[in-house]
Amino acid sequence: MRGFELTRNNREIERKFLVKSLPDNLKQSRSFVIEQGYLATESAGRQVRLRKTDRAASLTFKVGRGSHREEREIKLTPKQFAALWPGTVGRRLRKVRYEIPWKSLLIELDIYRGRHAGLVVAEVEFPDRASCGRFKPPSWFGREVTGEKRYSNVRLAVN
Amino acid sequence: MRGFELTRNNREIERKFLVKSLPDNLKQSRSFVIEQGYLATESAGRQVRLRKTDRAASLTFKVGRGSHREEREIKLTPKQFAALWPGTVGRRLRKVRYEIPWKSLLIELDIYRGRHAGLVVAEVEFPDRASCGRFKPPSWFGREVTGEKRYSNVRLAVN
Repeated sequence: MRGFELTRNNREIERKFLVKSLPDNLKQSRSFVIEQGYLATESAGRQVRLRKTDRAASLTFKVGRGSHREEREIKLTPKQFAALWPGTVGRRLRKVRYEIPWKSLLIELDIYRGRHAGLVVAEVEFPDRASCGRFKPPSWFGREVTGEKRYSNVRLAVN
Repeated sequence: MRGFELTRNNREIERKFLVKSLPDNLKQSRSFVIEQGYLATESAGRQVRLRKTDRAASLTFKVGRGSHREEREIKLTPKQFAALWPGTVGRRLRKVRYEIPWKSLLIELDIYRGRHAGLVVAEVEFPDRASCGRFKPPSWFGREVTGEKRYSNVRLAVN
């Protein structure tokens, strides 16, 4: 009984890096504003996140830390989103996401706004563990921060 | 922007009691099986609950403890529910709920199944603080356990 409304429900394999300098082609990349907030979070990375872009709203459950996490996501109608969103007050963040194709992968570059303005982070999702392990970051990537709580979105939003 | 898909989004005012003996008219009351599980829970009663009955599925956000709590609930489609439900494994409970009209109020009597079989609890929701304060429980009610963590559904499900 898998739903067609699902966007993703599986294990995420991804790595996260700080960004030393913005890439040259940034302006040509697709971008959109993301607003997100957390209804509840536990240790071990267990969390329920609401997210809204100009295109869609979603609710995402995650559990686990580091480069391998379980993730379950559903799309929300605007009404469903509006009903739950007030529950995230004081636990929100806003960022502009750029989607940058890179070799066979997609780099998601997030420029934070508001309280965390100045922070720029890049995430790369991999189809399998092998490609995750052999990934060679582009020169404009900085230090890897995969699994560092300080740079988790939930920590940035709640603290 | 209030949605029609909302069932309730407001402050709950309710009290909870153990049940000494089942009332005589129980068999005439409307009843249904409830399955519920928790995606994430925090201290201060913050939680995201999934619930399914034979009639509907829902996702509920709650925060606060005791007789006054904030609650936000949305209905879920069967597909939305199916996508999220696996995230509650190991944090579920099952009970049969009887809805018993009593004076101008509704008593929700829950008979737990499975691991907590033998536990019977009654909850009463009030339209305002005044009626909450002057409530006289029927003779078959036992000790009041409003706000006692031991008898919270989240504690029964997770521990």
